[in-house]
Amino acid sequence: MKIAIAQINPTIGDIDGNKDQIIEQISIAKITGADIVVFGEMAICGMPTYDLVANPDFIEKSMLAISEIAEYVRGIDLIIGTPTLNEDEVFNTVLHISSQEIVGEYSKAMITSREEVANYSGIESEYFPEGELLENIIEVRGERLFLAIGSDIEYIDQLEIFKGYRNFSAIINPIAVRYQHNIGFEMTQSMIQIAQKVKTPIISVNLVGGNTDIVYYGGSTVISDNGTLISKCKTFEEDMIIIETEDIESFGNIGNKKPTGKVKAKEMKLALTLALKDYFAKNGFKTACIGLSGGVDSALVLALAVDALGAENVDAILMPSQFSSSHSVEDALALAKNLGVKHHTVQIAPIYDQYMQSLSPIFGDLPFSTAEENLQSRIRGGVMMAYSNKFGNIVLNTTNKCEAAMGYGTLYGDTNGAISILGDLYKHEIYDICKLINSDQEIIPNNIITKAPSAELRPDQKDSDSLPEYDVLDKLLFGMIEQCKSNNELIEDGFEQAVVLKTRKMMNDNEYKRFQIPPVVRMSSVVLGRDIIRPLTCK
Amino acid sequence: MKIAIAQINPTIGDIDGNKDQIIEQISIAKITGADIVVFGEMAICGMPTYDLVANPDFIEKSMLAISEIAEYVRGIDLIIGTPTLNEDEVFNTVLHISSQEIVGEYSKAMITSREEVANYSGIESEYFPEGELLENIIEVRGERLFLAIGSDIEYIDQLEIFKGYRNFSAIINPIAVRYQHNIGFEMTQSMIQIAQKVKTPIISVNLVGGNTDIVYYGGSTVISDNGTLISKCKTFEEDMIIIETEDIESFGNIGNKKPTGKVKAKEMKLALTLALKDYFAKNGFKTACIGLSGGVDSALVLALAVDALGAENVDAILMPSQFSSSHSVEDALALAKNLGVKHHTVQIAPIYDQYMQSLSPIFGDLPFSTAEENLQSRIRGGVMMAYSNKFGNIVLNTTNKCEAAMGYGTLYGDTNGAISILGDLYKHEIYDICKLINSDQEIIPNNIITKAPSAELRPDQKDSDSLPEYDVLDKLLFGMIEQCKSNNELIEDGFEQAVVLKTRKMMNDNEYKRFQIPPVVRMSSVVLGRDIIRPLTCK
Repeated sequence: MKIAIAQINPTIGDIDGNKDQIIEQISIAKITGADIVVFGEMAICGMPTYDLVANPDFIEKSMLAISEIAEYVRGIDLIIGTPTLNEDEVFNTVLHISSQEIVGEYSKAMITSREEVANYSGIESEYFPEGELLENIIEVRGERLFLAIGSDIEYIDQLEIFKGYRNFSAIINPIAVRYQHNIGFEMTQSMIQIAQKVKTPIISVNLVGGNTDIVYYGGSTVISDNGTLISKCKTFEEDMIIIETEDIESFGNIGNKKPTGKVKAKEMKLALTLALKDYFAKNGFKTACIGLSGGVDSALVLALAVDALGAENVDAILMPSQFSSSHSVEDALALAKNLGVKHHTVQIAPIYDQYMQSLSPIFGDLPFSTAEENLQSRIRGGVMMAYSNKFGNIVLNTTNKCEAAMGYGTLYGDTNGAISILGDLYKHEIYDICKLINSDQEIIPNNIITKAPSAELRPDQKDSDSLPEYDVLDKLLFGMIEQCKSNNELIEDGFEQAVVLKTRKMMNDNEYKRFQIPPVVRMSSVVLGRDIIRPLTCK
Repeated sequence: MKIAIAQINPTIGDIDGNKDQIIEQISIAKITGADIVVFGEMAICGMPTYDLVANPDFIEKSMLAISEIAEYVRGIDLIIGTPTLNEDEVFNTVLHISSQEIVGEYSKAMITSREEVANYSGIESEYFPEGELLENIIEVRGERLFLAIGSDIEYIDQLEIFKGYRNFSAIINPIAVRYQHNIGFEMTQSMIQIAQKVKTPIISVNLVGGNTDIVYYGGSTVISDNGTLISKCKTFEEDMIIIETEDIESFGNIGNKKPTGKVKAKEMKLALTLALKDYFAKNGFKTACIGLSGGVDSALVLALAVDALGAENVDAILMPSQFSSSHSVEDALALAKNLGVKHHTVQIAPIYDQYMQSLSPIFGDLPFSTAEENLQSRIRGGVMMAYSNKFGNIVLNTTNKCEAAMGYGTLYGDTNGAISILGDLYKHEIYDICKLINSDQEIIPNNIITKAPSAELRPDQKDSDSLPEYDVLDKLLFGMIEQCKSNNELIEDGFEQAVVLKTRKMMNDNEYKRFQIPPVVRMSSVVLGRDIIRPLTCK
């Protein structure tokens, strides 16, 4: 039997658009001679849907689109995901459609909870009820397939039907798995183990595409019954592959490698670029603007935005102050020139001076403090938003994960933006992507990459005045955030006690800032502020 | 048997402080001759704890405090809530301590999920596993009590032990129920029904106090076995009452009335004042500042802040522009005078002019637009934050629920603030509280209450230029948000189709603003942006 894997990029809620895409894929699959075509989880409405599924109209519209699609299902069978409603409960369902009829309806049983969310795409347990794992058997052209929806596949070895001889040509596994570091490698390893346990080939069909903070990475896989990765869709792109079940054993091993070094940087870059591209395309936005400081974070955001949207759609705004070093301005201008983007310079000193003059009856002779430091950042935020309001360019946020963790940034200033591109990346990961971008030619001026990071809000300021050096901070925060280590464990790991305590305190004290930052593109297993929530009023 | 209900106000994570408070309450209860003293859910660590319970140190510290408390448990029994750890799972547990020993440990079984969260305090299912409802029997002085933790009580009529004769002197029910409109009335009604079903008195012990967005309202109740409300703790205050189980039948009926009109306004005012007071006290903040526009929202926030923090701790900043009407300034000044708060005036025109001059090379001759409108609001936001950074005053947000729903407010401008006081109140509720405040004397100038609301960002602007009139908008939004009605249902209810469609579209389109607003004090059953989440990228 020939199975077509249709790895598509649906837009959440754009049911008509998704329907057209699905119909097109069905006709392509038919041309290739496929007997059945399979789409990822909830392909008709996109994911994650959050509270959209609480609206009965939304589910009705999905089902209406499904019935329109069914008319095209002739000479090929279809496996497609949709939300369904049953006695006031909403289910994450997969339908089997054959000869224009729905011949099977199966709902996901093992709904992911908060703890498992890291690997997936949203806290499903808030929206869908848990069910019992059933023996979902699909018959097509006299062959038997088993259907496991999403993470249900992790539990199928418990089913009686998998305990004896092999009963199925293959397991069909529609999924929606988001990008995070190494996810392709890890998901494949996990599927290999399951295939070996149940002695059946597994065909996992993922979604692809950016949805604000979540990027489905694609990379749908075919694993043979002995646990060999024999075929794989492209990552970060739509793709279709056709697999002949009888031939699965004869395919070679294409191998499953853990991405390291440049490969990891390349994956991160692809994920971020797709996140940006889809954020704009799916929301109907066209142009972006970025405040360019001459530092590495805004430089990388600019380079990624140009990659995703085209240089003609990205504007850079330089907003130097008296504390900006001349090299910062030069570096920023050189970058804008290298990337070919339009750029403007707005001196913030006159606005700052006017603020201080207006505030002088209140501030009197009080010394320069965070009020003045942060004001500079907020003026920049104001200029960016005025530019955005005037020309329609979307402001891209340039905060990184270290800054978000430590609250090293000014609320309503540098934290502004519609979407945070780097908010889930540590500083060394940002450097890694910059170096990748520069691997053929110096696009990001080397000086931006090699100089000491500084917010430039007071004379000769360096990030390391307030923060540990980034090589220490990255590792320490990774221990606190991703590894959930206690202070004692971190001290045992060799971090200085004073540094550990100060870092933990800064992280805790700045939860309130993270409450108000833009959505962050998810790259790691734990995004601050949404995956980890600390009470704002607590001791 | 004498039971002491200890309704306390713990601070989340301040385990030492809470411990001291609990020890004090135990000794007071002992003096009154109580046989047993009962505290609300998780009294040792406060609620909601969110991800704090994921830290093993946090649970260990709670248990250590419990063992210190146990030393004081002599001649009286103690029922106290704490998180516990068992095989890597965290439980919402209640301990029975007698003669310095833990003699019983009971964990909450029916964990509230997202759907039920409205009535409670947080999505527990993200942090605690569900369990089986058990027959938790506690023996004290030869009498039998039944323990039902939180919402477990709603299911106890299913237990065999409640199907025959009455087996217990009373049901002890530690709870943590947050304020929302009518909650006291509704919780009591529900307890009355349960008491009648299980034919046993119910003693519900609530927490009290503000915790950022959540206000536990107190009002712990004693219901007789025939469903009569016989005693009730104060609302919005710490309190202790002592109840003699043998006498329960002889108590009178104190009645359960649904709050309407002035009583509802009074409850809202008490809840908001407590939220403010505790936000400052528990975070160690002292002073607040409020941007005073002359409109009703900022007027109410100022009045509430003065009530909660004292006039000497609240500063008002007037920031008129060329579009501010003279009466706005006069009204704002009159209010500041009535309340006796310090006030400053910062003219924003010079700062605005400087911004426009700096931007003129970029903006050229383009016409006045939202860029200029929003800039005014963002300058005000910048002034407020500069004041906050310079003097340590916490900025209070003044957005109301209609504005949050419609995105009628400038991100990084009026949406600024550490906490939103009115973000879950409709416009008519705001007027109701203002009228209550003015019932004895005109504290909020009547002109503020009677004039048409305006953002005053362009000449002769009125809110009703962009929004439906508030008397329509309040009802329409209530239908969309609290009642989850579809457009068709709303049109059937008599709302104009065009108004329904425009309102729904504005609400959907502005989800991105709500993503970045401060925490909102919860007053209704559905808070926008946290209880209802819509994907930011969708169609």
